Amino acid sequence: MVAAAAGYALAKYEFRGRQLIFSIILGGVLVPGTALALPLYPLLSEVRDQVQPPRTAPTYANPAQQLDYARFSSGELLACYRAERAALAAHSPDTPVTTNFMSLYRPVNQFRWAAELDVVSVDSYPDPADPEAHLLSAMTCDLTRSVGGGRSWVLMEQAPNAVNWRAVNVPKAPGQYRALSLQAVARGGDAVLSFQWRAAATGAEKFHSGMLPHAGTDSRVWREVVELGGDLGRLTPVAGRPVRAEVALLLDWESWWALELDSHPSRLRLAELLREFYRPLFEAGVNASFAHPEGDLSGYRLLLVPALYLVTDAGADNVRRFAADGGTVLISFFSGIVDPSDRIRLGGYPAPWRDLLGLRVEEFAPLPEGAAVLLDHADASGRGPAGEQAAGRVWQDVIDLRGADPLLRYAEGHLAGQAAVTRHAYGRGEAFYLGTLPDRATLRGVIEQACRQAGVESRTDLPPGVEAVTRGDYLFLINHRDRPVEVDLGGKGLDLLTSAIVGPTVVLGPRDAVVVAAGD
Amino acid sequence: MVAAAAGYALAKYEFRGRQLIFSIILGGVLVPGTALALPLYPLLSEVRDQVQPPRTAPTYANPAQQLDYARFSSGELLACYRAERAALAAHSPDTPVTTNFMSLYRPVNQFRWAAELDVVSVDSYPDPADPEAHLLSAMTCDLTRSVGGGRSWVLMEQAPNAVNWRAVNVPKAPGQYRALSLQAVARGGDAVLSFQWRAAATGAEKFHSGMLPHAGTDSRVWREVVELGGDLGRLTPVAGRPVRAEVALLLDWESWWALELDSHPSRLRLAELLREFYRPLFEAGVNASFAHPEGDLSGYRLLLVPALYLVTDAGADNVRRFAADGGTVLISFFSGIVDPSDRIRLGGYPAPWRDLLGLRVEEFAPLPEGAAVLLDHADASGRGPAGEQAAGRVWQDVIDLRGADPLLRYAEGHLAGQAAVTRHAYGRGEAFYLGTLPDRATLRGVIEQACRQAGVESRTDLPPGVEAVTRGDYLFLINHRDRPVEVDLGGKGLDLLTSAIVGPTVVLGPRDAVVVAAGD
Amino acid sequence: MVAAAAGYALAKYEFRGRQLIFSIILGGVLVPGTALALPLYPLLSEVRDQVQPPRTAPTYANPAQQLDYARFSSGELLACYRAERAALAAHSPDTPVTTNFMSLYRPVNQFRWAAELDVVSVDSYPDPADPEAHLLSAMTCDLTRSVGGGRSWVLMEQAPNAVNWRAVNVPKAPGQYRALSLQAVARGGDAVLSFQWRAAATGAEKFHSGMLPHAGTDSRVWREVVELGGDLGRLTPVAGRPVRAEVALLLDWESWWALELDSHPSRLRLAELLREFYRPLFEAGVNASFAHPEGDLSGYRLLLVPALYLVTDAGADNVRRFAADGGTVLISFFSGIVDPSDRIRLGGYPAPWRDLLGLRVEEFAPLPEGAAVLLDHADASGRGPAGEQAAGRVWQDVIDLRGADPLLRYAEGHLAGQAAVTRHAYGRGEAFYLGTLPDRATLRGVIEQACRQAGVESRTDLPPGVEAVTRGDYLFLINHRDRPVEVDLGGKGLDLLTSAIVGPTVVLGPRDAVVVAAGD
Repeated sequence: MVAAAAGYALAKYEFRGRQLIFSIILGGVLVPGTALALPLYPLLSEVRDQVQPPRTAPTYANPAQQLDYARFSSGELLACYRAERAALAAHSPDTPVTTNFMSLYRPVNQFRWAAELDVVSVDSYPDPADPEAHLLSAMTCDLTRSVGGGRSWVLMEQAPNAVNWRAVNVPKAPGQYRALSLQAVARGGDAVLSFQWRAAATGAEKFHSGMLPHAGTDSRVWREVVELGGDLGRLTPVAGRPVRAEVALLLDWESWWALELDSHPSRLRLAELLREFYRPLFEAGVNASFAHPEGDLSGYRLLLVPALYLVTDAGADNVRRFAADGGTVLISFFSGIVDPSDRIRLGGYPAPWRDLLGLRVEEFAPLPEGAAVLLDHADASGRGPAGEQAAGRVWQDVIDLRGADPLLRYAEGHLAGQAAVTRHAYGRGEAFYLGTLPDRATLRGVIEQACRQAGVESRTDLPPGVEAVTRGDYLFLINHRDRPVEVDLGGKGLDLLTSAIVGPTVVLGPRDAVVVAAGD
Repeated sequence: MVAAAAGYALAKYEFRGRQLIFSIILGGVLVPGTALALPLYPLLSEVRDQVQPPRTAPTYANPAQQLDYARFSSGELLACYRAERAALAAHSPDTPVTTNFMSLYRPVNQFRWAAELDVVSVDSYPDPADPEAHLLSAMTCDLTRSVGGGRSWVLMEQAPNAVNWRAVNVPKAPGQYRALSLQAVARGGDAVLSFQWRAAATGAEKFHSGMLPHAGTDSRVWREVVELGGDLGRLTPVAGRPVRAEVALLLDWESWWALELDSHPSRLRLAELLREFYRPLFEAGVNASFAHPEGDLSGYRLLLVPALYLVTDAGADNVRRFAADGGTVLISFFSGIVDPSDRIRLGGYPAPWRDLLGLRVEEFAPLPEGAAVLLDHADASGRGPAGEQAAGRVWQDVIDLRGADPLLRYAEGHLAGQAAVTRHAYGRGEAFYLGTLPDRATLRGVIEQACRQAGVESRTDLPPGVEAVTRGDYLFLINHRDRPVEVDLGGKGLDLLTSAIVGPTVVLGPRDAVVVAAGD
Repeated sequence: MVAAAAGYALAKYEFRGRQLIFSIILGGVLVPGTALALPLYPLLSEVRDQVQPPRTAPTYANPAQQLDYARFSSGELLACYRAERAALAAHSPDTPVTTNFMSLYRPVNQFRWAAELDVVSVDSYPDPADPEAHLLSAMTCDLTRSVGGGRSWVLMEQAPNAVNWRAVNVPKAPGQYRALSLQAVARGGDAVLSFQWRAAATGAEKFHSGMLPHAGTDSRVWREVVELGGDLGRLTPVAGRPVRAEVALLLDWESWWALELDSHPSRLRLAELLREFYRPLFEAGVNASFAHPEGDLSGYRLLLVPALYLVTDAGADNVRRFAADGGTVLISFFSGIVDPSDRIRLGGYPAPWRDLLGLRVEEFAPLPEGAAVLLDHADASGRGPAGEQAAGRVWQDVIDLRGADPLLRYAEGHLAGQAAVTRHAYGRGEAFYLGTLPDRATLRGVIEQACRQAGVESRTDLPPGVEAVTRGDYLFLINHRDRPVEVDLGGKGLDLLTSAIVGPTVVLGPRDAVVVAAGD
């Protein structure tokens, strides 16, 4: 499987042009007022006369202009990529071309880019010091697969051990390199590469780990690299199989650009919100994809819509139709607020979805950083299933119910007694609304409820840190913890990694995994 | 009353010139080395040859030059204002002219500016997330009235609800918009305006609240705007009445500029210190003004002098004479240190006031940030009236008593046993000195003592968060809390807001107020 | 003694050229891309064509180039010094020339500079708010003496009281000025000067203390200055005597420059590490010097080698030979990693010293900021002499033992059970290795063990904050605390400061000292 991807890796470094593209993306958006990209891309000298970048101003720069400039930057970088791809094609027409995506990287609209790549690839560098490193890298995998339209993809870069560009570079735990590599295969990756082969002895990357470390082959890292090579060979039956998901998180780079502009009610960060909504799906072993609001949603049963601040008329209609046709949607605060020109959709938020949601948001009441507001469940006790008190974070919407039923109410403050989380039947479907960001356990409960409503199977028996993903007919179970766990397979099956029959329960060692035919 | 101010509001937006002035003040001081203001004000091209702005240096720029540059910047902005006012006067000689002040805004010497305005106006944007928002806005009102020499003034801008330029923009609580508007009238405002009328649907201010919100007229904010309109009509009898104050806080922009230069013993911030000294007056229902050290002080009984680092000979004499003639003064650490050229007044601090205070400060011993030093009361027990232990913050002066009596002594550290707070009879008056910043309760006690000495009536019966202000013959009582409170009116009276007879005690609902003829 | 140094002080201010040199060093390294130093040093215009300074880059600048630029900057500043010294020599051939060092100041290689000074001098400005101010100033003294090759040196600048350039400038405690001045004499200083004589009344340094403060001669500071003058006269017998040290901390500016480059496993700061290794020596009354890795080590019994990241072949050989010949060395993590071109010395760290240490470091596992890892002592109980649990900070090496004996083992985490601190016999000597930074008490224990091994006498009876230094035949005992302490002199002796016979025990008042003939 490594071999299968070698062609791409070579393509990447063989031509000076491709290296330049790589550098530009790393550098981020075009820097206003500089000629940074000019030597690379002659077209820019023409557009400079037509495009005025946002200026430093005593107060805020025009937000619609900032949004347009983000569109322009992403588009021009893509045009640069196309120009260089054409140069490659002239010399090497049969070599597939790619460039490394970088997961939730805001400057580049990956839905647009992916259509122009022969194979989609990605760099994945979760911080081993983050106890949710495996959650973030799972999201990276799903995002990469999703922007590529479900095609198999390439994990172009990951570190065998520590990187060198954080303030403190904690190494990967024993087995973590392998576990995250298997995760990539589970979530649609058909090639698993690493950066770098031999750890450099000089230069700025000499303390970035390599497959062959400074210490040589008598080393943990080298032994893990060799072990992973064997595993990947044994996973050949999985290659090319699709990952099916019934749940999608709606994501639109245009909305992301607009959401994080200045002069807003609060400083929402989409990557953090996506993590909040992705976590319960991961913990419940639910396969999820990312979908564009205007994309084909017919394959999904449940849509999660976190802070989709900007939405086109077509996108808004698409979501409404999805629900009317029997789908379940769960929309959060600060969604559907503006049109593509960053103009408020007037008359009570979220204007395009008031009927869908059965409510009107009259005003926003963001919570100060770190603050929380107590919430009551709408039933008699006010408490959750286990008797726990719920709380909201980040945001409060002032909700005027117009048919929706409250699930949770504010329990204190100026909004005490008013609805905070609601549900509403719409057509043949159902629409949930979150006027605040519930605490993790409560949010997990709401999303489980939405899954049940949508007929999506979610597991509540997975131990913390255990990942369950289905690819084709194969179930991957990966233990990301440092201690053994017992997991229910639901039956017996052949583990591709060990060629042993396992089940109906299996004990996974620290960072260990099994890959069995699903449902066996 | 809103109508009365409409002329000013129109004046402000009618002419492009005025808008520019507004922008310049927002932009702050002239930026050294740029031609920012040149297109606006031709005179600058001449002065550029004569004025050298402070330069970036390996260590500190010349502090006297920095001080002069602050004078120059404030003065040139004022000259720009005058030039544009002249252009207005040529076309519209009968239209009164103003420009928005911005409360404790350091770059602009408002005492100088106010003399050139037909009516003084101000923007007031306290943060609703600050539990002392009403305290800061009260200080803004008193400052605006004071720089205008006691004239009625205009609240030119306030937000009906949230603003959009903080990191997190918490909305105003129900009733808070009204309570702060009534506060402005209580403290001498004759017009109460808001920004913006209709909440913008586009641009950088679209999430700044307006009187008519995105949600339309079926909204809390619109209903509060309408209610306030009625209240202001009912307060017509108050318009034009003066606010009388027997207490003044001395404030001089020249001293402020010098105080906050670099290379000082500690980083004192005048706005924070003013808040400390203003709080006890607010809590005791004592009307207070701000006065210039060289101004006419004859109307006051008590002067508070927080960190008046720079003082002219005339200002120092004025304060001394005030005390000699029977007034009470309370001077804090780091006052009277330098002359207008930022030269130390030698021989023991504060050189101009050593005789007045009956002491000499030998050296400074600032406290590290967040640190405190225990203080003992000078009487036998060492404790305060309620048996509490006092503490000092921010600063310690090493005080050499030369006739003054200690009120508080340092209770620990190298200065244990030495005087920290003192009083001294001078002529027919009395002078208190604070060598440290006492904790809030202790500072309140010292200021109450100074009020008693000065014959200034202060209340100790006001519940926390209740504001009591007298304007003309009217007593305003405003509850800034979210729960009802009972307040003693001292008798019965007609409430202008409800036309009901109230008293001798009254229960004020959350954020509610009464306005009764004083002493009835 | 003050008089003895007056010549140097005059030399410093007499010529405009010397003042410039002083300024340049304060300004630090040459600023890339500017002509800052050009007016001062014509040669620079030539080298500019040959030297390319590191550039701003999307990612890290070439580390070897950054290292070379640090060499270049230090060297060119030295060349500038030489040019100006030549100008001085032409006019005043008999005046000795110096320039102020600034203790652990990274841009200037003081070993190189000191060889060009007629007398070595230093500025010492420890922060009085730091309870270890006396420890840092002691290190400054030892460093200054060491770079000068053991010659007597001049304390060119210290503050009689507070400085003015910190955020909060805490004054020196009563007696602290004197105690730190006596410390300078104890550690080889033959002149003790202060900045400034009369506290300036104007300018950026007007709040920097002077020997004659703003308050005049009736002041604590002036009285302490006068007292110190008398003390220095009484210490005349000490002048010119050498300070002997059997322990050296290895220090190389070249390694320091390389150590603190970017893109490393963690952000080690040499000044902080030196403090950690110097503290136990100070607390045990052990005289210590700083030595260059390629210097003559024959006078020492024990070498401490904290984070000597870069080492030349000659330096590495020198340390090995020192141990082979019977010396004791204690080497920390991240030592011996690269050669002078910042190239990794391959094959397992630290390549030049694997045989010496009897181990191989396979990989690095830095600890997140503020994190700790529990350690077990290698003997049965796992606890220290007093039953305490040890802990490691900052760093973890993954150690592969090749003959060394473990002293401490990791007690938790992925490395549990593996060696963290080791010792190894080598030739006629012994080599200790620290794979982590033990907590203070544990590090002190390890260094005491190394002292015993090396035959270096260390005291365990000194009360905290008491300094014991031997210079020539004189023992200095200085109490840096605010309360009296009793110390054992080991016999009776004449105190130079009081001309009294003291001992065998002596009670030192707060910040007080005795100076007695050693061993009397």
